[in-house]
Amino acid sequence: MVKISIDAMGGDIGPEVCIEGAAIALDREPSIQYIIFGQEAACRPILDRFPKLKAKAEFRHCDVAIRMDEKPSQALRRGRYTSSMWKAIEAVKLKEADVAVSAGNTGALMAMSKFCLRTMANVERPAIAGIWPTKRGESIVLDVGATIGADSQALLDYSIMGGAMARALFEVKRPTVGLLNVGVEEIKGQEEVKEAGRLLREANLDTINYFGFVEGDDIGKGTVDVVVTEGFTGNIALKAAEGTARQIAEYLRESIMRSWTAKIGYLLAKSAFDRVREKMDPKKVNGGVFLGLNGIVIKSHGGTDGEGYAAAIKVGYDMVRNGLFEKIEADLKKFHALVVPPSDVEEETATGIV
Amino acid sequence: MVKISIDAMGGDIGPEVCIEGAAIALDREPSIQYIIFGQEAACRPILDRFPKLKAKAEFRHCDVAIRMDEKPSQALRRGRYTSSMWKAIEAVKLKEADVAVSAGNTGALMAMSKFCLRTMANVERPAIAGIWPTKRGESIVLDVGATIGADSQALLDYSIMGGAMARALFEVKRPTVGLLNVGVEEIKGQEEVKEAGRLLREANLDTINYFGFVEGDDIGKGTVDVVVTEGFTGNIALKAAEGTARQIAEYLRESIMRSWTAKIGYLLAKSAFDRVREKMDPKKVNGGVFLGLNGIVIKSHGGTDGEGYAAAIKVGYDMVRNGLFEKIEADLKKFHALVVPPSDVEEETATGIV
Repeated sequence: MVKISIDAMGGDIGPEVCIEGAAIALDREPSIQYIIFGQEAACRPILDRFPKLKAKAEFRHCDVAIRMDEKPSQALRRGRYTSSMWKAIEAVKLKEADVAVSAGNTGALMAMSKFCLRTMANVERPAIAGIWPTKRGESIVLDVGATIGADSQALLDYSIMGGAMARALFEVKRPTVGLLNVGVEEIKGQEEVKEAGRLLREANLDTINYFGFVEGDDIGKGTVDVVVTEGFTGNIALKAAEGTARQIAEYLRESIMRSWTAKIGYLLAKSAFDRVREKMDPKKVNGGVFLGLNGIVIKSHGGTDGEGYAAAIKVGYDMVRNGLFEKIEADLKKFHALVVPPSDVEEETATGIV
Repeated sequence: MVKISIDAMGGDIGPEVCIEGAAIALDREPSIQYIIFGQEAACRPILDRFPKLKAKAEFRHCDVAIRMDEKPSQALRRGRYTSSMWKAIEAVKLKEADVAVSAGNTGALMAMSKFCLRTMANVERPAIAGIWPTKRGESIVLDVGATIGADSQALLDYSIMGGAMARALFEVKRPTVGLLNVGVEEIKGQEEVKEAGRLLREANLDTINYFGFVEGDDIGKGTVDVVVTEGFTGNIALKAAEGTARQIAEYLRESIMRSWTAKIGYLLAKSAFDRVREKMDPKKVNGGVFLGLNGIVIKSHGGTDGEGYAAAIKVGYDMVRNGLFEKIEADLKKFHALVVPPSDVEEETATGIV
């Protein structure tokens, strides 16, 4: 059994999408148990349409719903302790749920997750890990926008956490990890990246296989299982790639609509198009995973539909089933035992980062 | 007449591609005059195959050719004053040529360009501007990898130089300029970006129309004429987008090859595919423009063919014809007269940056 808490008010559309998504995910993974948080008036009528889901879900009313355009600080002030977003995260803290899923605004969700769950011992800052479709299958890219400006230590933490996630998701024993850079030579790039590269090579960890530097086009090639980068660059690279995929799809559509022969050709080749669309579909790989907190939170795209939301739930489900959190904890502990004397570890923990 | 100097030894293939590219570009723009630098034994036989080009080109022998894998410092040591790359740049400095074109390695080309041409007065660091195909047509993105770590002042310089290039390239009067960021709200992002945004808004320049922040997917949408970012992020975003385009093309090809109906469909829709391919073809938009130096240098993709090299030459040709250099000089002067007292300007110039 995997227990999942749902922030039903998150996303551009809200309960309509989240509850339908929960129902779809349940059809596929009948062992899921839900706690659904939301405004009763909005959620109940929708929930009534999914009797199977209703039987496996506990609904809890919350007065406050966080808006998509709310600033993190404002959301925290207004929705801490009371909003459906907060409650879904808190359920993870209270061990009522194994993982929380929300399609709400990323900044608010990260701020609340940090405040409620706190950063793990030894982790300087959390990261958002995205799943990127590649030529070889899928790769993990982090950080895609949790924090701006990672030092070499944070890049190390990302490498270890990303490696743990790859083991949970892809079932590889020692995933390859690359640091995103502007060239593959050791002399190139940001100081932080070069320093992290040196440290990773020296550490020679048995949980990950450090590959070296990778470039922007290596992501889509699937050169490594895990691509590690600072959040500003990671976020922009992700959106630039998504934008390019959308751009090509639009060109193709417009171009095909211009002539009758092209339209007929399209119909004949439709299965091929559908396969590509499915492969590149953001819905299929929906779900950013918050790593480095004392609990797992999944961020779904705000503009997704029921299918996409179900995919985000599935990511959370897989993470729990494959022991992501325990893997991260063990890997980090192992690493820090290797490099930091125990007394320093405690000091660092005591300082805390909110 | 536009005089163009060619480093015929640059690129993965070298003279074969560069000389053919020069011949193609000359067919399209008969007013071009060339000075071609390269190793005589390698270049002469190829040049002999293009009599029209030969009549419009002066060939000058150089002993040294810079290798694609040479480190900038090494290239500078070995090839300064003697290599075809250096000589092509030097021709611009000596006013023998209006612009230099090379498909040689980017790091070496930038190092030599900086050393030979020097940075313009008031410009902290040079940038490489790329031309990005967008939904609306084309946009300029800079810096795509000249330098790592731009402060707010450098981002301002990029904005002004990118604006000048947009006026030269797109013939718009007051191009829109956006700063690449992880969100469009003013509170988001790197300090340098936020500061640059404030300065641009306050300056309210008549040469550019400052739009505000843009995100990664705004590049492909063509939200603004000029997208300004720091070189590390810009390089990774560019390569991630190029990688995505290549990835989709490969998926489509593989997917179509799987079935006979899809293959027939493809043939019927071929004109549509070709249009999209042409639109997204890196060859068509080949040519990174080095901005901020006392002369214009165009970097062609190293792996391009004759058509692609011709496109890079065409970019250089357009830049000269439309007075890019003079526009940048005038815009920067105007801007710095606005914000920096004249005495400071002289001091700054005297310091120099190599």
